[in-house]
Amino acid sequence: MPSVENSQRPARIGVIGSGRAHPLWDRWAAVIGRRIAEEGAILICGGLSGVMAAAARAAREAGGLTVGILPGTEAQSADPAIVLPLPTGLGEARNVLVVQVSEAIIAIGGGAGTLSEIGFALKLLKPLVLLGSWSVHPPEGADPPAISTRTARTPEEAVDFALHLIRR
Amino acid sequence: MPSVENSQRPARIGVIGSGRAHPLWDRWAAVIGRRIAEEGAILICGGLSGVMAAAARAAREAGGLTVGILPGTEAQSADPAIVLPLPTGLGEARNVLVVQVSEAIIAIGGGAGTLSEIGFALKLLKPLVLLGSWSVHPPEGADPPAISTRTARTPEEAVDFALHLIRR
Amino acid sequence: MPSVENSQRPARIGVIGSGRAHPLWDRWAAVIGRRIAEEGAILICGGLSGVMAAAARAAREAGGLTVGILPGTEAQSADPAIVLPLPTGLGEARNVLVVQVSEAIIAIGGGAGTLSEIGFALKLLKPLVLLGSWSVHPPEGADPPAISTRTARTPEEAVDFALHLIRR
Amino acid sequence: MPSVENSQRPARIGVIGSGRAHPLWDRWAAVIGRRIAEEGAILICGGLSGVMAAAARAAREAGGLTVGILPGTEAQSADPAIVLPLPTGLGEARNVLVVQVSEAIIAIGGGAGTLSEIGFALKLLKPLVLLGSWSVHPPEGADPPAISTRTARTPEEAVDFALHLIRR
Repeated sequence: MPSVENSQRPARIGVIGSGRAHPLWDRWAAVIGRRIAEEGAILICGGLSGVMAAAARAAREAGGLTVGILPGTEAQSADPAIVLPLPTGLGEARNVLVVQVSEAIIAIGGGAGTLSEIGFALKLLKPLVLLGSWSVHPPEGADPPAISTRTARTPEEAVDFALHLIRR
Repeated sequence: MPSVENSQRPARIGVIGSGRAHPLWDRWAAVIGRRIAEEGAILICGGLSGVMAAAARAAREAGGLTVGILPGTEAQSADPAIVLPLPTGLGEARNVLVVQVSEAIIAIGGGAGTLSEIGFALKLLKPLVLLGSWSVHPPEGADPPAISTRTARTPEEAVDFALHLIRR
Repeated sequence: MPSVENSQRPARIGVIGSGRAHPLWDRWAAVIGRRIAEEGAILICGGLSGVMAAAARAAREAGGLTVGILPGTEAQSADPAIVLPLPTGLGEARNVLVVQVSEAIIAIGGGAGTLSEIGFALKLLKPLVLLGSWSVHPPEGADPPAISTRTARTPEEAVDFALHLIRR
Repeated sequence: MPSVENSQRPARIGVIGSGRAHPLWDRWAAVIGRRIAEEGAILICGGLSGVMAAAARAAREAGGLTVGILPGTEAQSADPAIVLPLPTGLGEARNVLVVQVSEAIIAIGGGAGTLSEIGFALKLLKPLVLLGSWSVHPPEGADPPAISTRTARTPEEAVDFALHLIRR
């Protein structure tokens, strides 16, 4: 039967983080990418270097589907481990799409782009798991966040949290 | 070896057309969806009803990967034959993405949204194959189009043209 | 009283057309830009050269407000006659915004980008006035367009049609 | 002379913050909106309620131009004090545009959407002034931010900082 009930679709997990190489973050990303693939989930990421490439390579080695939502218009800009490059041409606005199309987000370390994605995950009510990432504190008087974030201590735990948050 | 050279990546073929059921267009879409999957290419579409659903169902029956770039924020709005729903939340602007991320576009019949995508295919220099679709004529004094469109007589020919235009 | 009832807001008229210089189209654009300003309406355009610049310069000379929705991230890319440059960073997807934020669209001559905007005007049900622009014909079996387009014979008539379509 | 050199264009200052009414934030927003107008700058905001409306009303009373970049497709959703509503239809992705088109950003208090805009301001290297807003701390090992943010103690100071950062 060819149809894919929503509950049967592979989970879509977004992995966000810096595009700059960073030994610890990249090691974490590799563990996370592999586990996402082993769990039969689809890796969504920004398609470029750093954490994105490290997660995609590990997911690919484990036979997973890797999707890269690119800022530019050229598929060639994607890391070779990206099976499905999506050259959006939207520039940095593509960060919103990475969050919007994912069912849960794992943030690893990160730079300013990662912070924008953390903000969007909170705004779009996407389950969010932080691993050695930004620490953010709302101003006094702000509404309590409508979605709870989880802080993981290990990359394995980060994937477990993400899958748990999607499936419940 | 897990890496995916650009030339080895599955081709991404966008199929565009009306979201309204139309017996002839839907029949063509089914032939096109099946052939795309049989050729090992990935079907990109708008993820909803009509031509999109007809192409996705046939591609899915043939074991292909089907991607639905949705206007809304809910993956559930995708046809069940869509394996990878991408809920963009961008509204009708998602039409630009359908064209931008595809390597070639096949337009089947179509409504106003299809016309916007034909315009973008010409603007973004995406190979474009028309099958019983809009007829468009530039004003006198316009530059000749920078990309040639092909008009197919059959759905089989439409896929052949699209693959030929991608691979050359 | 500072508040601006919707009916009291200045009308927003989008002028679309080729970015390449073309004597006749640019002359028409100048007439249209001036009349838009004289009517107290706001000129919305793509902010760059050709028809966009010609309309903006004439609107500016007549004291009007000129808005340029730019594809890039740099306000400096706008023609000097643009008072309010909006550098979107969205690339060609900014064409959708030009149409979406306008209350009526006037298409002058035009290239492929213009065709994409004509398609979006039809899709988004925006009143559309064509002046020496694309001729488009839907396929047999398509729904009749949900919005009627007008073909103007002169640039003066184009603005009259646009204002009439907005105000009725 | 109708042309507008870049240096002569009115400054575009984005004011971001919660859409929910909050007495202190709204009072700050009113001071900021008025000063933006008095300085001859253009107020860019999200066009809706809360901080956006409070800033727009005060700017409007002072005779300023108020621009509302709306998530939906209807200009009517804008606060009446918005002179130029820009209904983008892009949903929450419109937050990126608020930041991208502004020359400096003032964040007042705020919710999750505000955090996403703070992240984008840092990513897009837009001068950013915080007034009783989010406190964000990058992870260890992150690059120092490429753009310095300023924390204002009063709304008057916030506008001064923003104008200073634009003009230097």
